[in-house]
Amino acid sequence: MTGTEVLTGRVQDRNGPWLADRLLELGVELRHITLCGDRPADIEAQLRFLADQGVDLIITSGGLGPTADDMTVEVVARFCGLDLALDEALDARIGEIVTSLMKRQTGSQIVDAEAVRAANRKQALVPAGAVVLDPVGTAPGVVIAGTPTVVVLPGPPRELQPMWQAAVATDAVQTAIAGRTQYQQQTVRMFGLPESGLADTLRDAERAVPGFDRLEITTCLRRGELEIVTRYEPRDAGAYSDLLMVLRERHAREIFSEDGDLVDDQVAGLLDGRSIATAESCTAGLLAARLTERPGSSAYVAGGVVVYSNAAKAAMLGVDSTLIETHGAVSEPVAEAMVRGALQRFGADTAVAITGIAGPGGGTATKPVGTVCFSVALAEGTSLTRTLTLPGNRSDVRERSTTVAMHLLRRTLTGRG
Amino acid sequence: MTGTEVLTGRVQDRNGPWLADRLLELGVELRHITLCGDRPADIEAQLRFLADQGVDLIITSGGLGPTADDMTVEVVARFCGLDLALDEALDARIGEIVTSLMKRQTGSQIVDAEAVRAANRKQALVPAGAVVLDPVGTAPGVVIAGTPTVVVLPGPPRELQPMWQAAVATDAVQTAIAGRTQYQQQTVRMFGLPESGLADTLRDAERAVPGFDRLEITTCLRRGELEIVTRYEPRDAGAYSDLLMVLRERHAREIFSEDGDLVDDQVAGLLDGRSIATAESCTAGLLAARLTERPGSSAYVAGGVVVYSNAAKAAMLGVDSTLIETHGAVSEPVAEAMVRGALQRFGADTAVAITGIAGPGGGTATKPVGTVCFSVALAEGTSLTRTLTLPGNRSDVRERSTTVAMHLLRRTLTGRG
Repeated sequence: MTGTEVLTGRVQDRNGPWLADRLLELGVELRHITLCGDRPADIEAQLRFLADQGVDLIITSGGLGPTADDMTVEVVARFCGLDLALDEALDARIGEIVTSLMKRQTGSQIVDAEAVRAANRKQALVPAGAVVLDPVGTAPGVVIAGTPTVVVLPGPPRELQPMWQAAVATDAVQTAIAGRTQYQQQTVRMFGLPESGLADTLRDAERAVPGFDRLEITTCLRRGELEIVTRYEPRDAGAYSDLLMVLRERHAREIFSEDGDLVDDQVAGLLDGRSIATAESCTAGLLAARLTERPGSSAYVAGGVVVYSNAAKAAMLGVDSTLIETHGAVSEPVAEAMVRGALQRFGADTAVAITGIAGPGGGTATKPVGTVCFSVALAEGTSLTRTLTLPGNRSDVRERSTTVAMHLLRRTLTGRG
Repeated sequence: MTGTEVLTGRVQDRNGPWLADRLLELGVELRHITLCGDRPADIEAQLRFLADQGVDLIITSGGLGPTADDMTVEVVARFCGLDLALDEALDARIGEIVTSLMKRQTGSQIVDAEAVRAANRKQALVPAGAVVLDPVGTAPGVVIAGTPTVVVLPGPPRELQPMWQAAVATDAVQTAIAGRTQYQQQTVRMFGLPESGLADTLRDAERAVPGFDRLEITTCLRRGELEIVTRYEPRDAGAYSDLLMVLRERHAREIFSEDGDLVDDQVAGLLDGRSIATAESCTAGLLAARLTERPGSSAYVAGGVVVYSNAAKAAMLGVDSTLIETHGAVSEPVAEAMVRGALQRFGADTAVAITGIAGPGGGTATKPVGTVCFSVALAEGTSLTRTLTLPGNRSDVRERSTTVAMHLLRRTLTGRG
């Protein structure tokens, strides 16, 4: 992973985690992820370190751009003892791509296409003998067979992801990963259990489950959800099912997924054939955005309102202003009035309302920052209202609130409210 | 950075980028970021690699939890040649914290506090002679003076961030970073210029600007915005102002920030004293959520609607259904009807409407996936409507749309529509 920008908070590395999952699927064990700036010495030091660790495959991403600070190909070539050569066909290809890109570039004045091609010619320099991966954007990737085999990919995820598929198909990569073990991987998800509670259970399971030590268990608490990922070789499937039984015994109420499904997948399924509307205050659209992340969600999402001001709560959802005066905007009666308004105004059969104090301001002794009221209602009459105090800063409270709402939706739609 | 979960797509490493920015602010040069799983050999190999690079300071994050797979402190202690010792006071302290945490844990049944304390006792084992950093969550951090000095921090950003401030205050860290150079850093942001266009400009600047080679320039294209970050030693300030002049000459229209301000900061300032409402289709709340990320945004955000269905467009915004039949839901007339509806229904003086095709389905020959219509309107009469074709997948189009909307808002509010 290179690019001085990945050494700053300005760019989130999305490639490391994505490639990690692809390798996991392939049964390839990922040993190290390293990031450094566009400094040849640092890039080379990391390549050397990884090679010294005896890995079979090194994947680099980034540093393939037209600007002078992009030098990954050059450094990798030197590391592999290869010279760079201009690939004429590739050069022409890049020229075409860039010219057509220029036309699409939204909002840009037309830049001299020749100058741009000159800037991109650099990208047509590839290590002699390397397998060239067709550009998805303007930058080609390369695969250099050897010990270790090195795959050089561009930084933008939109370019890297399809190009990785092409890289895996090459003989060089297939040879490099030939020795892999095929692992099984299972994921269990829970909601509402603290990580230390699970640690307790796992310590008991260690004694109770034969072969427990051959299970590679990773636990992770995120947004109030606890994820337990277990990897094991096929012969240890029995140990895993024993572990699963222990988890079910102890945490039947908290387990919501044994097949890795996300609550988002489950809610999407439960909403099939229904029509949902949202009424959001503190989350201000995050729940509606989350419900519509999936293609096809327009089939069941009618819409939603973001009612930040009290006037908007009245105008858009018909929330009685005296209700707000009496109980406050963050209260269960107001959440219930919001959810009723959402059902009615959108003619939906399912609705969720969220009103809370995301902070940092607005907290009181009785309603501290993090206080959030949720209400879920179905046209057929079922409804569920809860008030929680969520930890963290403004963005944590907002994000966590959407997760709580998804779980309350799930419980209501499965009749387990 | 450790934790098997960071080697999967399941967890995004937020600590690397955050720490990178803090180090940059301190003028400390960040050479490498490395991530590995909870494998002692891999953690030790990375510590060794970093030490071999001659760095003055190593910061680790993660692997301090109560579960058995958390072993960073143990490995670091061994690496530094120190034994682990139980810190009784710390142990008691963690006990209290955990017990009170248990009470807060939303939705959890009460777990046996003794068992939990046992799980956490492990966290009270610290390297002999290390400086202990008070727990923010349940895990303490440690600082071990030496060459290099090693700072061990917990994984959760909410715990790591305050603890880093405490770590920096220690003599050990101050000594380790004493040799740093104080760099200046300036950020210029542009919208609507392709990266290759900038590369072209920078190549000319290289010839035109004396001392150009002493400027460390990083460019990054993200969500349609181009960010140019330049670091330099104080004595090279002249070279930077020359570079800035070249950028202004060439790209006056695209530069929207010369002081690093984000378009979000600028729009927040422009909305001071105003009242804004949003009407979103394909972005489904992402713009409202973005406008309310800042504390205090409730002063100028009235609210918004997410109108996914045509019925909702009519019911919530009074969009004439014949308008939709004639021009289609994704059209400038419908965007303009939506923005008028938002102004009126929320009694706002500023409104933005977005309707588009995020895909993957729904594209046509005349309106391909990525086609998005934007309309911005002010109560005083100004309005601005644009249709763009945005690149990328569903999530790219949705996210990029909010950025375009922010820039159209900025232009309208500054009378530069």
